[in-house]
Amino acid sequence: MFTGQVIGEVWATRRHPTLEGFKLLVIDPHEVEARLPGGKKQGLVVAADAVDAGVGDQVIVAYGRAGRTALERGHDIAVEAAVVGVIDARSGPEVA
Amino acid sequence: MFTGQVIGEVWATRRHPTLEGFKLLVIDPHEVEARLPGGKKQGLVVAADAVDAGVGDQVIVAYGRAGRTALERGHDIAVEAAVVGVIDARSGPEVA
Amino acid sequence: MFTGQVIGEVWATRRHPTLEGFKLLVIDPHEVEARLPGGKKQGLVVAADAVDAGVGDQVIVAYGRAGRTALERGHDIAVEAAVVGVIDARSGPEVA
Amino acid sequence: MFTGQVIGEVWATRRHPTLEGFKLLVIDPHEVEARLPGGKKQGLVVAADAVDAGVGDQVIVAYGRAGRTALERGHDIAVEAAVVGVIDARSGPEVA
Amino acid sequence: MFTGQVIGEVWATRRHPTLEGFKLLVIDPHEVEARLPGGKKQGLVVAADAVDAGVGDQVIVAYGRAGRTALERGHDIAVEAAVVGVIDARSGPEVA
Repeated sequence: MFTGQVIGEVWATRRHPTLEGFKLLVIDPHEVEARLPGGKKQGLVVAADAVDAGVGDQVIVAYGRAGRTALERGHDIAVEAAVVGVIDARSGPEVA
Repeated sequence: MFTGQVIGEVWATRRHPTLEGFKLLVIDPHEVEARLPGGKKQGLVVAADAVDAGVGDQVIVAYGRAGRTALERGHDIAVEAAVVGVIDARSGPEVA
Repeated sequence: MFTGQVIGEVWATRRHPTLEGFKLLVIDPHEVEARLPGGKKQGLVVAADAVDAGVGDQVIVAYGRAGRTALERGHDIAVEAAVVGVIDARSGPEVA
Repeated sequence: MFTGQVIGEVWATRRHPTLEGFKLLVIDPHEVEARLPGGKKQGLVVAADAVDAGVGDQVIVAYGRAGRTALERGHDIAVEAAVVGVIDARSGPEVA
Repeated sequence: MFTGQVIGEVWATRRHPTLEGFKLLVIDPHEVEARLPGGKKQGLVVAADAVDAGVGDQVIVAYGRAGRTALERGHDIAVEAAVVGVIDARSGPEVA
């Protein structure tokens, strides 16, 4: 799992049917702010929304079986990442 | 899952039989454009096509069980990544 | 699996119900100290705590089925990373 | 899945018995040539050979269940990556 | 799978019970020597030992189900990486 900020959304009319109805969010993974710039961030991730998250939210993302569990439509779906929580507080160094 | 651009295709005559009939696309993962150059992109990924995608398309890629679900040939195939959607709109910062 | 330092904690009121009761720790993966700075660290990871770890601890993190096994609530939870050990000794080069 | 070049082979006399008989190839993942040098390549991968590949070949590598499917010895083997195809043609930008 | 050098060991008294008895090795993944320095190495990995490996050995590491298969204690253990072979020969470019 990792945390990041929702920076956008993607829409696909041509898609596998099991993607229908999912909000697909683009997540920019967090890095310790003091390491930026110079430190490189992890790549962008697309995750289906399980907790009514939106652009600007700081979120927790889970992969694979864990992500599908949060989506509650079984495991025969073409999805392997989900937003499973919206962060309302954190301790530790600043992240961005 | 991630999004990227289809930049090419690969063909292999000598391959595991369960790869037969799949279009194998080379995907260049998206990064926030404002971070390029200098920021490094994730590595190239090869994914089997599940939605009639082609070179130049902006697509969504899913891994593992999720990818195979989109391909609809069961899980006893030598494939662990699939193009599951073609993006027709996105919000958020420009990506490249 | 990897080792790292616990640098913080995240709280999410809006979350998938199966996350309830888990302490969610933010882990900064270790790198060989002599390679820093200049060498880049791996990205931050969020893991559920299975061994009563806390901020400042040096820990071992396991992913997927292995992580869920340590959490002992079955595999139908929206979690795919867990802190499975607190390091009290290590040999080899210094890490940070 | 990804594509890369076979740059060598490794031999291990002391190994788990289920590795016996597999040719273990070292794969250097492809990157878009125009991004090198400066862009960093992904790390080297070791994969068991499923298609009689050898040093110098451009190949397709699959992970996990997909890789083991290509090896056709079931899933109780200590292997999670396999060479599943030898590339004889590709379109798109030059890779190296 | 990947190859690397064992650079140390970690000990954890406070750990999940299923980790008991495993030697936990710290692996520094190999990179092509001619690319170092400047090229960055992959992050350190912790793997349970399945082949009586030790510090200084060049080894093969497998993840997930493959790694647990080599450890021969079933899949209900909090481990997802194992040293599955000790390399006694390799061809190709020098690695470090």
